[in-house]
Amino acid sequence: MNDSAPHRHGTATPPGANPLTVEVTRGQMVESRHRVSVAVCDPDGKVVRHWGDIERPVYARSSIKPLQALPLIESGAADAFGLSDAEIALACASHNGEKRHVDTVRAWLARIGLGQDALECGPQPPFHDRAAMARIDAGEDLASLYNNCSGKHSGFLTTAVHKSENPRGYIRLEHPVQQRVLGVLEQICGLDLGNAPKGIDGCGIPVMGIPLGNIAMAMARMADPDGLPDHRAAAAKRIVSAMMAEPFMIAGTNRFTTRMMTALKGRVALKGGAEGFHVAILPTLGLGVALKCDDGAGRAADATMAMVLAHLGVLTEAEQAELADVMFPTVENRARLAVGRVQRAADAPF
Amino acid sequence: MNDSAPHRHGTATPPGANPLTVEVTRGQMVESRHRVSVAVCDPDGKVVRHWGDIERPVYARSSIKPLQALPLIESGAADAFGLSDAEIALACASHNGEKRHVDTVRAWLARIGLGQDALECGPQPPFHDRAAMARIDAGEDLASLYNNCSGKHSGFLTTAVHKSENPRGYIRLEHPVQQRVLGVLEQICGLDLGNAPKGIDGCGIPVMGIPLGNIAMAMARMADPDGLPDHRAAAAKRIVSAMMAEPFMIAGTNRFTTRMMTALKGRVALKGGAEGFHVAILPTLGLGVALKCDDGAGRAADATMAMVLAHLGVLTEAEQAELADVMFPTVENRARLAVGRVQRAADAPF
Repeated sequence: MNDSAPHRHGTATPPGANPLTVEVTRGQMVESRHRVSVAVCDPDGKVVRHWGDIERPVYARSSIKPLQALPLIESGAADAFGLSDAEIALACASHNGEKRHVDTVRAWLARIGLGQDALECGPQPPFHDRAAMARIDAGEDLASLYNNCSGKHSGFLTTAVHKSENPRGYIRLEHPVQQRVLGVLEQICGLDLGNAPKGIDGCGIPVMGIPLGNIAMAMARMADPDGLPDHRAAAAKRIVSAMMAEPFMIAGTNRFTTRMMTALKGRVALKGGAEGFHVAILPTLGLGVALKCDDGAGRAADATMAMVLAHLGVLTEAEQAELADVMFPTVENRARLAVGRVQRAADAPF
Repeated sequence: MNDSAPHRHGTATPPGANPLTVEVTRGQMVESRHRVSVAVCDPDGKVVRHWGDIERPVYARSSIKPLQALPLIESGAADAFGLSDAEIALACASHNGEKRHVDTVRAWLARIGLGQDALECGPQPPFHDRAAMARIDAGEDLASLYNNCSGKHSGFLTTAVHKSENPRGYIRLEHPVQQRVLGVLEQICGLDLGNAPKGIDGCGIPVMGIPLGNIAMAMARMADPDGLPDHRAAAAKRIVSAMMAEPFMIAGTNRFTTRMMTALKGRVALKGGAEGFHVAILPTLGLGVALKCDDGAGRAADATMAMVLAHLGVLTEAEQAELADVMFPTVENRARLAVGRVQRAADAPF
């Protein structure tokens, strides 16, 4: 295994020259355009395909969640508390805050002896549940459960409780929970992250700037973990298997990742992230994909991931036709009339 | 007056090479980047400044509303129904659906003898008013009033009623309401729009692809209308004056346009549009500005407009400091912690 930066084909693309991959039409013309960089790597760090700059550090945001869940399994916490596939999938999720998501998180927290007040992810209005929104408006403090990251945070808390650590402040880089995550990221991404650019994620935890190629390599190691230490390989397999078994828990109704993973069951674990990030773990190919939209648009990240999966042969042509509405969604106006489309850019390189 | 396409300084910029103007940071690094094209024109079509491609047709979306309001004044409808500055401003608005917006639209419609069922703009959830959202959920049909375009549509209806036209179908290109708008756009943009690329806007009305330079020229003609036919010049002055007098009506609480126009009263009428559009009408300089973010991001359109206004000397340095929070907003996480910033890109050309 090569723990240094991934090898590259060809020369580095200058920053800002990432390819146009997705365009959004309205009526007779293209209205908006998106540039995306893409890395497809194998577990040894070989770059199998790349388009655009894959060396510049980027924040993978919520796409990193499957890696952040590794300590939950490796520590023995998941076994100690008998976590189900649904709960492990939620630890990797950016969920909609639908009833099943919230009920599962609430019951899980109760099992580790904590309430939602232990969550440090901050509140998020439950747009998919206006009844709950009204209860929150009326003063009921539910909002942290509805945060799309509440499963990941429950995973962090579960590890802390299992290790008999004070969970308070578990979102801070200094806390053992985040230090374990940092160690995992350094090993699986093949990088010393001590000097990596750092920031704070939407849910309060640290984010690290990591080159796109290294993130793709890490996802390839999740897809084909045989080169990882035994305990990490077993944890990776369990996480990827749970994600693929419970696609609803990863996102929810009508979400791209849930729709795609449901249709392609067993072939891909997908995870989107804020600001136009997306990763794919491809166990049948033993590859990982990471992509970032320059401008942060989720619509372009989703469509580009669909295009990359098609390019790699993960979807059949029949599946592409069946999934067209989620791969390349219609743009609707307020009266729900179809007025445009998200589509492959005319000069997209794949 | 030059009714052909605007003159250009220098050569056309190839599509896709529009300058990076805005970047969004998180912690220690830039997370996302936006490219924007900008045209600053005078009423004769001279391009005073330009960055990027200003010849490619673009949809100005809601930024075109001040021009679409011209027939409301020119037809005599505004006088016949005694429209206030607040109502004329609402005809040019993309409002928040706050109480004052909705109450004003409701009372205006009542004055022309119509109810909200005459609005063909489609529903829009009133995110700023959860009590109203709950009433809509309970079956009360309020949602068209809350549509951010309900003022513009009320203006269309007012003109139709004044002209004794059947208002039904007023959103269709064939209807006299839209034909009058088309005629105004052709004259003030200096273009035959018969073959322009067309589409349907979010609120159901036609949108036309028009080069950015021509839109900037049209806004300059609103800023300095002395070269327009008398009735149009008078209508332009009344619209710009109403917009500047009632900045709350144009958008609402905490919105960029409302904050900027309130602070710069009498110096600028601003109007944003969907998919990263923005225009400025600058009566003290006799200039118009139009800009479009390649990827459709409103955050980049707002910040770039602020930068252009600063570049043109419309804002003093003291005002830039005072308005920094709206020109270059903080990125907050769910716990409301400041974790990043929208800022001028390192290599922005202005």
